[in-house]
Amino acid sequence: MQKIKIGIVGFGNLGKAVYKCINNHTDMELISVISRRNLYDIPFTHIDHILNLRNKVDVMILCGGSATDLPLQTPEISKYFNVVDSYDNHKNISEHYNIVNDICINNNKTAVISAGWDPGIFSINRLYSECILPQGSTHTFWGSGISQGHSDAIRRIDGVIDARQYTVPIDKSVDSIRGGCDKNINFTDRQMHKRICYVVADSNANKDIVRDKIINMPAYFEPYDTQVNFISSEELAKNHSGLPHGGTVIRSGYTDDETNHKIEYSLKLDSNPDFTANILLAYARSVSKLSIKNHFGAKTVFDIPPYLLSEKSRNDLIKELL
Amino acid sequence: MQKIKIGIVGFGNLGKAVYKCINNHTDMELISVISRRNLYDIPFTHIDHILNLRNKVDVMILCGGSATDLPLQTPEISKYFNVVDSYDNHKNISEHYNIVNDICINNNKTAVISAGWDPGIFSINRLYSECILPQGSTHTFWGSGISQGHSDAIRRIDGVIDARQYTVPIDKSVDSIRGGCDKNINFTDRQMHKRICYVVADSNANKDIVRDKIINMPAYFEPYDTQVNFISSEELAKNHSGLPHGGTVIRSGYTDDETNHKIEYSLKLDSNPDFTANILLAYARSVSKLSIKNHFGAKTVFDIPPYLLSEKSRNDLIKELL
Repeated sequence: MQKIKIGIVGFGNLGKAVYKCINNHTDMELISVISRRNLYDIPFTHIDHILNLRNKVDVMILCGGSATDLPLQTPEISKYFNVVDSYDNHKNISEHYNIVNDICINNNKTAVISAGWDPGIFSINRLYSECILPQGSTHTFWGSGISQGHSDAIRRIDGVIDARQYTVPIDKSVDSIRGGCDKNINFTDRQMHKRICYVVADSNANKDIVRDKIINMPAYFEPYDTQVNFISSEELAKNHSGLPHGGTVIRSGYTDDETNHKIEYSLKLDSNPDFTANILLAYARSVSKLSIKNHFGAKTVFDIPPYLLSEKSRNDLIKELL
Repeated sequence: MQKIKIGIVGFGNLGKAVYKCINNHTDMELISVISRRNLYDIPFTHIDHILNLRNKVDVMILCGGSATDLPLQTPEISKYFNVVDSYDNHKNISEHYNIVNDICINNNKTAVISAGWDPGIFSINRLYSECILPQGSTHTFWGSGISQGHSDAIRRIDGVIDARQYTVPIDKSVDSIRGGCDKNINFTDRQMHKRICYVVADSNANKDIVRDKIINMPAYFEPYDTQVNFISSEELAKNHSGLPHGGTVIRSGYTDDETNHKIEYSLKLDSNPDFTANILLAYARSVSKLSIKNHFGAKTVFDIPPYLLSEKSRNDLIKELL
């Protein structure tokens, strides 16, 4: 069996995690990491020379950020390669999809976009749950875990040297959905999550002003109960250097007034990048299989039949897992 | 929009639940219930006249039992109709699949087999979890809930008038997987589940003998810790007339020696038949869509792209749920 030849574009947290996790997938091999910076001791191609990898890479795993990298990189790279990305700007996914789909169709390429855990695996669970229990409501809780976007927002405040922000679900609300029979529960943002911040401030900074700027930041912190803890950079490095995350999707449905059903899907992850990397690798497998069968265009996780994600044959899956 | 025209074959617990739940799916309509017994006050066709429904029904939902009904009915009915069943004899699914697939291919029909919650939704979760976390182990716990097979097995014992058997997961084992970091946990049957029985005995029966026969029954009870409670038929009717069920699939995976990840999927169902009925209805929708596009043959839940289960358009799903 030929292995699936993988390229990794970008070598931040996510790219490094794909590099680390690829060996867990025995049907894949790394051809090259593609980056703007020169890298050493690993197979490396400068992004200016990415076209040298045509016909050498089956699927490019795009590991850039959703804010500025992927909106440019996914359309550009999918002209020449099959790709998978974890584009996570929910509001713009439809637009991103349409752009990438047109390019793939015109260039006989296959892409899966937005294949992380949310959007991604959580989305799949929202979909299955809603289809199986059409009457009811779905709630998604994130955390406890580090939100990189919120941590970045704190770092941009004057006087802040470094910061980590944990998104934490409100247990009382989670439990009320798990245990309750209410047909239509609606929560405010504040009732669903709180935000706990660990901030290293400059010695000259006025901590009260920094705290005020954080807790009043619109959209990011103002709609939530936010706790700000000032700590030393040593403590930040010692206790908050990981990127754990997790969350829960709960469907609370019913089939008559007295007959309730709960579907709950939960993740508890020591490393958000490792987990997302493995999702990208599984979907890269499906991209490779679809491309071989000339199924071109952009796809989402909703389009991919589950068996295409596996190393195992369809027959073995029926025998072992069905 | 034309509604999807549904037939229900069999009118036991599951058939009745499909009949009850079909109205929750606004794109479907019931054409007829097909049964060996005459039914009144509902659209009814005797099974001897099922062929009168050709060109009137898009998908037949087969609600017979897996022991004797479905091995005959699914192959026979899929000669003439698209079908979906919840065949649940894990050991024989491959054989059932092959038989139904050949018939569907030869007759331009589409089938989804084994579409319940286990096999079915639980299987899908085992598959996704294994693909995303290739290193690790998966455990499936069932319950607390009524096992109809085990209840039937007790009823066949001399001196037993009626019985209900609850399968109950062992909390300690579930918690040790949830919280633990062991790479390869292996449990015996006894460590995973216990069995709690409520038995109505004949007044002449020797309860000690009945109890011995239950707890020593090979495969069904002998490998487990089994509790037998003798109760009156009134108490059975009052406290044990429902068919609740549920369960949990837990993947305990890792991406390096110190980086662990848990994926947990849990169901808590007031009515096992209602929930299974809704799964069958969602997969009947996918059968109808595949058949219209001339995708014939037998499929499993592993083959069906999630979006085919929804009433909503692919674009709306991307906007609302991705």
